[in-house]
Amino acid sequence: MPGGVSTPVRVLGIDPGLRITGYALLELTGRKIRIVEAGVVKSRGETLEERIRDIYKGVREVVEKFSPESLALEALYSHYKRPMTAVLMGHARGAICLAASLSGIPVVPYAATAVKKALTGNGRAPKDQMQRAIQNELGLKTYPKPPDVADALAIALCHLYTFL
Amino acid sequence: MPGGVSTPVRVLGIDPGLRITGYALLELTGRKIRIVEAGVVKSRGETLEERIRDIYKGVREVVEKFSPESLALEALYSHYKRPMTAVLMGHARGAICLAASLSGIPVVPYAATAVKKALTGNGRAPKDQMQRAIQNELGLKTYPKPPDVADALAIALCHLYTFL
Repeated sequence: MPGGVSTPVRVLGIDPGLRITGYALLELTGRKIRIVEAGVVKSRGETLEERIRDIYKGVREVVEKFSPESLALEALYSHYKRPMTAVLMGHARGAICLAASLSGIPVVPYAATAVKKALTGNGRAPKDQMQRAIQNELGLKTYPKPPDVADALAIALCHLYTFL
Repeated sequence: MPGGVSTPVRVLGIDPGLRITGYALLELTGRKIRIVEAGVVKSRGETLEERIRDIYKGVREVVEKFSPESLALEALYSHYKRPMTAVLMGHARGAICLAASLSGIPVVPYAATAVKKALTGNGRAPKDQMQRAIQNELGLKTYPKPPDVADALAIALCHLYTFL
């Protein structure tokens, strides 16, 4: 099939958070994209280490269950407005990278602007434009919620486009 | 024994780094402190996720081998001069917290000033004063190298003092 894939490709998109981590498993067959599963991993632990353990276990479970060929994640950037938040997010992101790494799948980072550009053609697309792009591409009647899932879908889509 | 511990206590001090992570395992028996083992975990991986996997595996191995009752780590602080470095360090720190958490041992954070104060009485102690304190306390003829090991010894000592 021209421009499509000959064997189905599964990717996992992740939107990390210390309380709620969104994930989206997409599959590309030929040129058709479908959602295999999407949801959130909730961290119920009280301490930082308990929370990142919850994130790690949840993401590892999804990776082991669905065997994606890679995991897409927002890239690090050089200017964080709140360094304390950044270092905490680094812990969550580290736990996710570790889940991928221990399962032997690569982590593919995408800058937020690259995700927006891939989905809308505009690296500075406003939120509603992104919402419509995700809905259209995946044939969804309503906008996916919570936002953590929507963000995970967006990054997974961006990653999947690179296979086309 | 007054002021000492009735059963031996083992703690692990860690100085995280994306290339070299120092560790120090100390044991307190009564009021006597000895080094069980100290060394470094080297991250040879090329990507960030490979490096944090190396850190995780190395620290997990030490934890499983020596069964410390807790792991001491430098506390997060609110003002990072270089946010990009901070978020990368967050990944390393996250991998270490995860190694502790998955082995069921608590992570105990200490501010850098608390470590200095515990070892020298001065929260702003210069480096050479810290070096002498570590050497004296552990009866070392020379100063431990590399600095990652010395820093791990310092934080492990600070933690062990709380048992006295």
